[in-house]
Amino acid sequence: MTKPIIFGEIKGIPEGYVFKDRRTMMKGSFHRNWAGGIDGTGKTGVAAIVLSGGYADDEDLGDTIIYTGAGGNEGDSKKQTKDQDWHNRGNAGLLKSMDEGLPVRVIRGAKHKSLFSPKEGYKYAGLYSVIDAWEGIGKNGFKICRFKLEYTGSNPQRQTTEDIELDYSTKEKKRIESVVLRIVRDTKIAREVKQLYNYQCQICDHTIVTKVGRYAEGAHIKPLGKPHNGDDNSNNLICLCPNHHVMFDKGLFSISDEFNLLGNIAGKLILKDKHKINLSNLAYHRLAHGYS
Amino acid sequence: MTKPIIFGEIKGIPEGYVFKDRRTMMKGSFHRNWAGGIDGTGKTGVAAIVLSGGYADDEDLGDTIIYTGAGGNEGDSKKQTKDQDWHNRGNAGLLKSMDEGLPVRVIRGAKHKSLFSPKEGYKYAGLYSVIDAWEGIGKNGFKICRFKLEYTGSNPQRQTTEDIELDYSTKEKKRIESVVLRIVRDTKIAREVKQLYNYQCQICDHTIVTKVGRYAEGAHIKPLGKPHNGDDNSNNLICLCPNHHVMFDKGLFSISDEFNLLGNIAGKLILKDKHKINLSNLAYHRLAHGYS
Repeated sequence: MTKPIIFGEIKGIPEGYVFKDRRTMMKGSFHRNWAGGIDGTGKTGVAAIVLSGGYADDEDLGDTIIYTGAGGNEGDSKKQTKDQDWHNRGNAGLLKSMDEGLPVRVIRGAKHKSLFSPKEGYKYAGLYSVIDAWEGIGKNGFKICRFKLEYTGSNPQRQTTEDIELDYSTKEKKRIESVVLRIVRDTKIAREVKQLYNYQCQICDHTIVTKVGRYAEGAHIKPLGKPHNGDDNSNNLICLCPNHHVMFDKGLFSISDEFNLLGNIAGKLILKDKHKINLSNLAYHRLAHGYS
Repeated sequence: MTKPIIFGEIKGIPEGYVFKDRRTMMKGSFHRNWAGGIDGTGKTGVAAIVLSGGYADDEDLGDTIIYTGAGGNEGDSKKQTKDQDWHNRGNAGLLKSMDEGLPVRVIRGAKHKSLFSPKEGYKYAGLYSVIDAWEGIGKNGFKICRFKLEYTGSNPQRQTTEDIELDYSTKEKKRIESVVLRIVRDTKIAREVKQLYNYQCQICDHTIVTKVGRYAEGAHIKPLGKPHNGDDNSNNLICLCPNHHVMFDKGLFSISDEFNLLGNIAGKLILKDKHKINLSNLAYHRLAHGYS
């Protein structure tokens, strides 16, 4: 794996693209791991995974995939004979992807049993996010590392099982009425800002230490998306712990042009010299939350 | 508004249902406010809103709606002549809905200008979540309270502008590559557990005080959804601040059958007498994160 790791979409390979074999996927860094399912490490995060029928505990619901981590199989055998562990480079990589919000390219092989698998070769299923990780005992009686991935690409024409699901839910049991309280999105530039601060919150200096690194959230000062249309630029981003992120987004505190905290919290924004904030973004946040 | 407030879907009124007039919407508590757009208060949260062309600053993108709050219009006039404020009962209600993750029924009137409005009467657009709130100066020169709502219903056949959007994005500017880091969902039972603890975290006793109340998150011990299939029951829920919610979901700490904290945090789960936890859910969490 000497080629550089590339995250996200790769030009010329749209969703639904079918590769003839694994060798052709290695070109252009689409999936660089010839022998394993996981392309990436605990240091970099994971750029791509292949589902190829190697693990009995995988479940594929289309937009949701339950993926078994790497390790535990003897040699080239398809049968698990040992426990898996989180220090395996692929498993640590998927944890890193979850903590960093990295996009993972998912590829289904013909040997993988699902409604979405290709008849031949390897089909690109689009970008997914790792949203959960846990361990359990697999069908072969050994410990497995499990991951839940959800489709986060932007193709509205993709094939899903949503209709089937809706149908099941009325027959089997009532769908649980749940509402989205909070969605935290992450971007490449947000990750750079978080790295600059070593994942320490710019308000309280706190960090959350995870199994494979640290966790913090990138907060856009002037929000992304309509109607704010803030920039995805480091001059519009700060690194916050989840508590201070919630408070900042709700306008429970704001920040002056001198980086003093306004509102419910006293103190000053922790700021590195090389991190230049665009003051007009701070002005936007103050105006939006009644601080001017 | 003497009828009881009802949140979420109401039997017999599917998405796309068209009411002849506002009076017929009042039956069955679908939308109980005859004169105003917002049905609800800062105490209860908002059950339903009507978009009826009364505010110049509304924007309707289908799955995303930018909604102008209530107040500032003189009498029955459609023209704003005063500032709006957050203490207005409708505006405080929408803030409450955001903080609690309450589902809001959205109804579009024929006078509301959008691709999705009915030719006549009032059309039910489905359930939305309030995901952002801020203030600004409206087209008429006065302060307005603004809300961003996103579709969170479960109808895959709904009309959206997603295709149009995708088309725009390639022409206008590159879509920002962002990935979901965290989705926090809330349920009715989670809200009850949070209320029981007055929104204080069961680990650190901390609460986040918002403009109109308090904020905390309901954490399912055995997660909802496949493949965990945990119950949406108070015996499977604890009330946490966002920081401890992240840490619990990542398994950075777990809880023993005696409610001692295991892992990175010392201490004991704060627990009210009437809150009975199902110990098998704690065992599931410990197993899933390597504590047994």
